[in-house]
Amino acid sequence: LGAPTVGEEWLVDATGCDAAKLRDRALVQSVMTEILRDLDLHVIGAPQWHVFPGEAGVTGLYLLTESHLAVHTYPELGIATFNLYCCRPRTAWPWRERLTARLGASDVIVRSVKR
Amino acid sequence: LGAPTVGEEWLVDATGCDAAKLRDRALVQSVMTEILRDLDLHVIGAPQWHVFPGEAGVTGLYLLTESHLAVHTYPELGIATFNLYCCRPRTAWPWRERLTARLGASDVIVRSVKR
Repeated sequence: LGAPTVGEEWLVDATGCDAAKLRDRALVQSVMTEILRDLDLHVIGAPQWHVFPGEAGVTGLYLLTESHLAVHTYPELGIATFNLYCCRPRTAWPWRERLTARLGASDVIVRSVKR
Repeated sequence: LGAPTVGEEWLVDATGCDAAKLRDRALVQSVMTEILRDLDLHVIGAPQWHVFPGEAGVTGLYLLTESHLAVHTYPELGIATFNLYCCRPRTAWPWRERLTARLGASDVIVRSVKR
């Protein structure tokens, strides 16, 4: 329908997560590392990380050969959101299973948008 | 419908753009600066930029207080894709008008996803 053909973006929202886990940058970073490794994605430069003050969450942004990967966490709401934008076809990642295991998510909504 | 409430993401795909403009990092960066200024968004740290070699495009990633802003260009296809993820409500940006004026886009598809 006239849509561009530059890949696919996954928007993944995990709810009901453990607040302490969402404040743990090392843990969230290890989830990102798993995604990158499992999908054979290639990081360019140093990823950007920011730990928001107080009870707030973390943000991580990775510039990839294949486009980008982002995470934002909201401990006060028990929510973590991921974006994975790939300009090459990739096999799906088991978001639901892994985010439940790693972040204690009770629900994981996976949406995919062709671009 | 049980959807998380951590903001809104705009996925904006501009097609039919001028290839030379999509290879011009300074120009693409000036578009990003306009978006940030007009929407009163706040950048944390230094944005990441990468200029892909040869005839390829550029990528820019901005970590924001309000979440993130990303751009990828594909000169060989005449396409530029933007992501703006805001965890606070924002007024809309005139994507169609500005990307037509600045990048020579012939069509701009704006999609918005609540998260």
